[in-house]
Amino acid sequence: MSNYLLTIAYDGSGFHGWQRQPSEKTVQGHLETTFSRLFNRDIKLNGTSRTDAGVHALGQRASFDADLGIPTERLARVMNNALCGCEEGGFALSPVRIIKAEEVPEGFHARFDCKGKKYIYRISCGEIDIFRRNYVYHVNDGKPCILDVDAMNEAAGLLKGTQDFKSFEAAGGTPRESTVRTIFQAKVMAAGGEINAPAAERKPTAPAGGRDDEIVLEISGDGFLYNMVRIITGTLVEVGLGKRRPDEIKKIIEAKDRAAAGHTAPPYGLYLKEVYY
Amino acid sequence: MSNYLLTIAYDGSGFHGWQRQPSEKTVQGHLETTFSRLFNRDIKLNGTSRTDAGVHALGQRASFDADLGIPTERLARVMNNALCGCEEGGFALSPVRIIKAEEVPEGFHARFDCKGKKYIYRISCGEIDIFRRNYVYHVNDGKPCILDVDAMNEAAGLLKGTQDFKSFEAAGGTPRESTVRTIFQAKVMAAGGEINAPAAERKPTAPAGGRDDEIVLEISGDGFLYNMVRIITGTLVEVGLGKRRPDEIKKIIEAKDRAAAGHTAPPYGLYLKEVYY
Repeated sequence: MSNYLLTIAYDGSGFHGWQRQPSEKTVQGHLETTFSRLFNRDIKLNGTSRTDAGVHALGQRASFDADLGIPTERLARVMNNALCGCEEGGFALSPVRIIKAEEVPEGFHARFDCKGKKYIYRISCGEIDIFRRNYVYHVNDGKPCILDVDAMNEAAGLLKGTQDFKSFEAAGGTPRESTVRTIFQAKVMAAGGEINAPAAERKPTAPAGGRDDEIVLEISGDGFLYNMVRIITGTLVEVGLGKRRPDEIKKIIEAKDRAAAGHTAPPYGLYLKEVYY
Repeated sequence: MSNYLLTIAYDGSGFHGWQRQPSEKTVQGHLETTFSRLFNRDIKLNGTSRTDAGVHALGQRASFDADLGIPTERLARVMNNALCGCEEGGFALSPVRIIKAEEVPEGFHARFDCKGKKYIYRISCGEIDIFRRNYVYHVNDGKPCILDVDAMNEAAGLLKGTQDFKSFEAAGGTPRESTVRTIFQAKVMAAGGEINAPAAERKPTAPAGGRDDEIVLEISGDGFLYNMVRIITGTLVEVGLGKRRPDEIKKIIEAKDRAAAGHTAPPYGLYLKEVYY
């Protein structure tokens, strides 16, 4: 018996989230069905993050125990071939891709051993682009507007450190013992790279084609409450639009009340980028 | 009774093409159902191009006669609001967008009065990007490769003018009297603009986020045979990969035989960009 760890990217727009559900198409369900058929045995995945419907992943992780009888270095390719075969029609590529498959020590668990995660959130302040409708949050109902990136970045900085983020937790998630979390890093960047960096030094940051009208929030921490990144994004967008001052973040945190924070940004601008072990 | 002309953009990936079908979701069917309900009368659209399943549009046109009792300048907004309402859930934006709605003289017909069309085709020679899987053609099975853009552009140039394009016609389309067409312009560009243009002068050409690993074919003409742009693209890709010499295009045209041309590129890299009247 070997223990495997997968790094997985997916376009969440056609899925009802990660977690297996009896009657909805989910990423976990899709992978377990495909792999169980491929290897002719029951494969059960332990995913790191239960991403919501519409949320994407660039680096989701999932571990599983199995005796596959196949060299580990061939695993990702075999899995990706099977995933493409699951698509109807000859042309379409799979919305899920195994980036990496590796063997890990016995007992390693993709969720329990997770030390932290990084998410990114893509925001557009330009006109509605129907081809990005599932991949970025068009603020201001898709009417071009100006977002104050410096103010957003100042507000984001106040989220760093170990604090009680109860104000940024939506109802309906798994009950948690504590709402204290540590945010390692939180920054807001214009598409193409760090704000204020000379143009020549900017690097693409957005996963699916960062554009001039895009702003990206990058946030990492030891854990996130239910909808926390989306509520943080909604609040930062209100700062960017001038509806809130950057230093209101402090008062929002102190309030320990969901009503003090801003709106919940939609799922489809959110990407699970990286998991730390 | 007024005669209206719509300019329409759509993400074709969720549709079985433009043309209304009894049991499949099509763009025409979706628009006619939405507008008939919105205006409480039977709306029938005359679309310019019957785009295939998976093909996108940046500037499809459709005309219709109706007595709407609404100022024309408000029409696009009213239609777009109705289209968004058709989507399930509160968040998702519509995959179809009315770019422009205008009044045209009595008797004007979006298809019969069409003088020509421009298509673009997006090709990626980079690694598979699952977020672009419905929007570009990943050549070489998504394994990074080099496409000789100069050779492709040389081959594209040989398509220009009035010629018999029988070799570039797929079976199964509407029967045509003649397979002679006039190609006004055909060029292949690296993403970001014209090939060999200085970086600073390059402009974005791809509709949904042109990237460094992308190549775009832009082709305009007075009309196109069934699958003609996709067969041209497949043939140019074979030139780019070094499997054919650029000047083979002449022999392919002379052959008047589909078997002489290259493979048919998939639908999802193709965009109807513009219609000429």
